Amino acid sequence: MNRVPTSGSFETWLNIGDKKSIGEALAAAHPADTANALLDLDDASAWRILLMGRLADAGPAFGHLPMEVQARLIEQARVKDAARLLDRVAADERADLFKALDEPLRATLLPHLSLRQRLDTERLVSYDEHTVGAVMSTEFAAVPGELTVRDSFDFIRDEAPRKETVYAIYVVDELGRLAGVVSLEDLLTSDQERRMDEIMDRDVKFVRADEPRTAVAEMIRTYDFLALPVINGGDRLAGIVTVDDVLDVEEEEATEDFHKMAPVGAIGTGIKEAGLALLYRARAPWLLVLVFMNILSGAGIAYFEDTLAAMISLAFFLPLLIASGGNAGSQSATLMVRALATGDVRLSDWVALLAREILVSVALGVTMGVAVAFIASVRAPEIGVIVALSMVVTVLFGSLVGLCLPFLLTRLKFDPAMSSSPLVTSVADIGGVLIYFGIATWWLGDIVAVA
Amino acid sequence: MNRVPTSGSFETWLNIGDKKSIGEALAAAHPADTANALLDLDDASAWRILLMGRLADAGPAFGHLPMEVQARLIEQARVKDAARLLDRVAADERADLFKALDEPLRATLLPHLSLRQRLDTERLVSYDEHTVGAVMSTEFAAVPGELTVRDSFDFIRDEAPRKETVYAIYVVDELGRLAGVVSLEDLLTSDQERRMDEIMDRDVKFVRADEPRTAVAEMIRTYDFLALPVINGGDRLAGIVTVDDVLDVEEEEATEDFHKMAPVGAIGTGIKEAGLALLYRARAPWLLVLVFMNILSGAGIAYFEDTLAAMISLAFFLPLLIASGGNAGSQSATLMVRALATGDVRLSDWVALLAREILVSVALGVTMGVAVAFIASVRAPEIGVIVALSMVVTVLFGSLVGLCLPFLLTRLKFDPAMSSSPLVTSVADIGGVLIYFGIATWWLGDIVAVA
Repeated sequence: MNRVPTSGSFETWLNIGDKKSIGEALAAAHPADTANALLDLDDASAWRILLMGRLADAGPAFGHLPMEVQARLIEQARVKDAARLLDRVAADERADLFKALDEPLRATLLPHLSLRQRLDTERLVSYDEHTVGAVMSTEFAAVPGELTVRDSFDFIRDEAPRKETVYAIYVVDELGRLAGVVSLEDLLTSDQERRMDEIMDRDVKFVRADEPRTAVAEMIRTYDFLALPVINGGDRLAGIVTVDDVLDVEEEEATEDFHKMAPVGAIGTGIKEAGLALLYRARAPWLLVLVFMNILSGAGIAYFEDTLAAMISLAFFLPLLIASGGNAGSQSATLMVRALATGDVRLSDWVALLAREILVSVALGVTMGVAVAFIASVRAPEIGVIVALSMVVTVLFGSLVGLCLPFLLTRLKFDPAMSSSPLVTSVADIGGVLIYFGIATWWLGDIVAVA
Repeated sequence: MNRVPTSGSFETWLNIGDKKSIGEALAAAHPADTANALLDLDDASAWRILLMGRLADAGPAFGHLPMEVQARLIEQARVKDAARLLDRVAADERADLFKALDEPLRATLLPHLSLRQRLDTERLVSYDEHTVGAVMSTEFAAVPGELTVRDSFDFIRDEAPRKETVYAIYVVDELGRLAGVVSLEDLLTSDQERRMDEIMDRDVKFVRADEPRTAVAEMIRTYDFLALPVINGGDRLAGIVTVDDVLDVEEEEATEDFHKMAPVGAIGTGIKEAGLALLYRARAPWLLVLVFMNILSGAGIAYFEDTLAAMISLAFFLPLLIASGGNAGSQSATLMVRALATGDVRLSDWVALLAREILVSVALGVTMGVAVAFIASVRAPEIGVIVALSMVVTVLFGSLVGLCLPFLLTRLKFDPAMSSSPLVTSVADIGGVLIYFGIATWWLGDIVAVA
């Protein structure tokens, strides 16, 4: 078992028509390793190799291919072959693939699936993205409560290959409603003649199919579960979410948060697979929003044109000052967005964090003020005090914007991750211009008036 | 089982000295729920409640408390009580706690632990942070190869409560070297009289204790394992990493990447628990580095002082232009950093991505150029062409910096996540100033010369 196959040996066997070796290699390898080897071959060869193996080996290997490769292979395959293979792909992976296929192909393929697989697929694709239903699998182990431990073992032995996990066995009533759970571990240590409803844990934790998928991730993380049952509107057991699904959910959620911090709109696929038009559409709107915000900074500078004209050396420190406010704001915003996302910080912590942020920001501002006063003493000593004072206020202002924006967005039911560095920087820029030229105009009062 | 306890009922029972109810509640609740209820009580009450339960219940509940609460409770506890409880905390969690304790307390506590627990703890704390050894647990199920399936079941029944997982049983030779693995599922479906070394999977995947912890996360994610064995220098089985450990590793790694993108230095604890001095130290160096980079932008402006003085309206568009270059760069950098972190993109993809980035950036630049030309036509038509042209070049420049920096850092063995938005923005700012005033000076050639 678990020999790692190479694309080279697959190619050789394919060329000499050695179907037996291919079948054996597929049976012996972990499906992830098979998928990895197939990726190095052209689509037609990869597909022929998959069809040469047992479906029970080829299905999981196919399910481990990247989504866009799965879609390509299915699009060029004969419908009957595709349906036969898809019958043996995990239900949640098959549903993900169906979502990626064009509607006509989906409609052609569906009737060729086995009845059970077809119903599962239709149900799973119907759930909204980002819900629990969209990540769950329908391949769970469920038994009636009157079954004995002994009979349950027999059931598991028979059913194990077709289930995502048998380490949690769910007990359902005659209407299919979730009544309890028995771990395989508990099953092992129980008397063979007892009934499942006697040994089951009745206070089983569950999620509903229409809850956001982050809910299930948080529960599995909190309780260290290997799987969590999902119930539907009628309280019936509809599926399970396994911990490996949660790993994928967490990675996707983190990626979405990173992208929002860029800020970039939803891409929903890998960077290499994303079309140029998609990348353009994800980026252009944000750049335009930000540029129109920057007009305000420009307007601020225009408003203080007399001050600038009277003391042109002020321009030298402008980028440095407003950038520092933005940088401090970017730090605060990122710390808060991540802390809110991981549950480290809640909305109610806002006031306590604000007080801390003010203390830290003043310290940072004074540090930066000293640094910039040093630079000014060399380059433009006549405005040293203005620059140093502006730095303290600008860093404080930027930090507070960065701290408050994520909380404000959360409060207004927006995603706090929208407080991207560029957005915070834009707001801090406007504030920075007003602070800097405001202080300069006040300090240089007479000079400006004379000019 | 699994009744969720409340801090209120714990408090009541504590006040009336109802030790029995407390013990029952601890036994019935999931340790994560107990920990959650204890968090609402003061430290002294929480500790007294833990000591009133069975150690087998109190240990896991204690292990689910946040690290800094664990440390506080242990610091104020009597050494004997602390050691008794710590004996029953999961080995990996105990090791994490020991790392957080002061050296004198650590030295006081260690001799009071049971021998096995002491040796485990000493070994686990010795591994460098960010290695597999630092996240693994020593509580795995291992049996000799000559054991029969029947005897293995008996072993698992006895040992299960003391193991992190019994869903993978490792087979070791007489020197403790990893020889194979049997899943509990396979054990169930095997003949009771066969030997473990007959049914085991010999090509077992494993990691080494001194590998980076991201390696184990990637393997568990790829193969959908529930646990992965860890071997040490002598190829001996040293521990396991379970999938719930990987969930924590992935969250921590993502948080570290977010913070680097801020940019903020290593904090290593929650935001609320981090001291003000720690926050200051994590933020100030980056702000100073960035401000000194911004001096270059200022120097650029100073160099073009004549151009600016001749056409003061140029200043109006300066923040907007350099910010747009920085924003486009921030988008590219964030997309690349995340794609490199998730393995979506590799170093070798650089050239292909560069070609795509140029196409997308030119489209973005032209869009932005049109937008800014429109603004200029209202505010300062005399420099419309300069501004529009500069925008196209600046956005292209910023995007390319954002794309290339993560790859460059990876190539130089630095962490690509250091290509934070503010860092990219600083580099783009410098370029933006030179591009803008360069184009302006060339376009306005005569006017500047006259002035």
